[in-house]
Amino acid sequence: MDLPRRVRIVEVGPRDGLQNEKQLVSTDVKVELIARLGAAGLPAIEATSFVSSRWVPQMGDNADVMARIQRLPGVDYPVLTPNLQGFQSALVAGAQEVAVFAAASESFSRKNINCTIAESLARFEPVMDAAKTAGIRVRGYVSCVLGCPYEGDIAPDAVADVAATLFGMGCYEVSLGDTIGVGTPGKTRRMLDAVARRVPIDKLAGHYHDTYGQALVNIYASLEAGVATFDASIAGLGGCPYAAGASGNVATEDVVYMLDGLGIETGINLDALVETSGWICAQIGRACGSRVSLAKGACAR
Amino acid sequence: MDLPRRVRIVEVGPRDGLQNEKQLVSTDVKVELIARLGAAGLPAIEATSFVSSRWVPQMGDNADVMARIQRLPGVDYPVLTPNLQGFQSALVAGAQEVAVFAAASESFSRKNINCTIAESLARFEPVMDAAKTAGIRVRGYVSCVLGCPYEGDIAPDAVADVAATLFGMGCYEVSLGDTIGVGTPGKTRRMLDAVARRVPIDKLAGHYHDTYGQALVNIYASLEAGVATFDASIAGLGGCPYAAGASGNVATEDVVYMLDGLGIETGINLDALVETSGWICAQIGRACGSRVSLAKGACAR
Repeated sequence: MDLPRRVRIVEVGPRDGLQNEKQLVSTDVKVELIARLGAAGLPAIEATSFVSSRWVPQMGDNADVMARIQRLPGVDYPVLTPNLQGFQSALVAGAQEVAVFAAASESFSRKNINCTIAESLARFEPVMDAAKTAGIRVRGYVSCVLGCPYEGDIAPDAVADVAATLFGMGCYEVSLGDTIGVGTPGKTRRMLDAVARRVPIDKLAGHYHDTYGQALVNIYASLEAGVATFDASIAGLGGCPYAAGASGNVATEDVVYMLDGLGIETGINLDALVETSGWICAQIGRACGSRVSLAKGACAR
Repeated sequence: MDLPRRVRIVEVGPRDGLQNEKQLVSTDVKVELIARLGAAGLPAIEATSFVSSRWVPQMGDNADVMARIQRLPGVDYPVLTPNLQGFQSALVAGAQEVAVFAAASESFSRKNINCTIAESLARFEPVMDAAKTAGIRVRGYVSCVLGCPYEGDIAPDAVADVAATLFGMGCYEVSLGDTIGVGTPGKTRRMLDAVARRVPIDKLAGHYHDTYGQALVNIYASLEAGVATFDASIAGLGGCPYAAGASGNVATEDVVYMLDGLGIETGINLDALVETSGWICAQIGRACGSRVSLAKGACAR
């Protein structure tokens, strides 16, 4: 049972996290958050999304954010792009990596983005073509990989189908999201085993929400399966609108604490991360979702 | 990697949990909590402790609690007894199982119970003798098995020494406590491997605090090592006075949710547990420490 020696953390707080915060966060705070995360050693920081600001007002300053962030050498700043229009805006704003997303659940796809899974995948084809032409890397997200708020259980093969399609279309990595945080480690392992039969394991990332407190154990089960990339959100920023009162993304600090304890390299400075967590919680007046930052006294309860 | 098919949960909320709550909880509430936990299917419920009420005022009603609880068939109601005097009081109160405790850290032993580890173990000898005569089962606790607030790391062999001594003295089971919740799964596994060389694995229990969010993943690593008994506390009641602002015991609901997902039998009804969690948090006006109960809307945030 050899675990990976090195893990890559993709920080999704500034996008996936803040997107679910109700009050608008200023561009200044977003830019400083991204700078602090980069200084803490995060190798990839999802910076914003290029969706319609009518849908997601929180990301209405996407071009400003991209113009103002200081890009550190060796750090990726991917942005979410739902369609070709979003991709073109991202390109103009200077993005060098984008992400596209599909669901493993038909019902979730229809309710969340108002189209079938097949339609959503077809919509990405021109994005993939344009990205290839522009020399832009594309990351794929699959949501509801361990359960759906409408359908309940999701078959591992349904996840594998969507992941394989995204990988086949040219995504360099596919991030598997437990959007509602219902997964447990055995289920996580069975899902990963199914997906890994279609996509190489080193092209997969785990994106687990901590709604039911299972995110770290699902990450551990994924490490045992050979997955070495995980998405996480500083202070556990974010949440899922489909699970009442629920916490959202797993907190980056909690993941790094575990990986440090396991002797797995991340290149991330935990103290700087905890300090950043305290800072962002104070800036936006939010309760901290990280047990590590709470235990270290960086955040008020 | 076969996990145990069945796990025994020892509920420690009414004792280890409530003991750390500042406001005095009424005997009525304690008795009803124990009744609800029994009805939810817990096979063992630590009911109270027989320590001096000068030290722990919260447990000053120990004899009343023991007199008033309705004992369900097949359910154990152990009580904590630090010395022979406590044991005799517990016996008079009708206890049929007691627990003794020692630390794996010399500094913690001196600061917490004002004696060396060896002295604390010697103090249990008359308790063990009296228990044997009275036909009472004795459970042993070892604290600081994955770290000490004064000494930092604790050698796995130091834990094994204390656990083996308790087992050799006649404890039917030894519960290994990560008192300050600093452990991570690799360290947990190394500690268990060291202890299991001296005490049969089926005589060991894991007692992990969730201070740094690592309790569930440490339980999972322990399941992989073959441990099949875990201590947990409804709603995560409790906390450690040595870790500022920190959460304490792992929440029983979160453990049962994971075990249910893994297909491991516990005999416990998760819905009844979540309802009990909401009830006790409302009774004592405490924030819930369980992500499952929060996600299910049983407890206010």
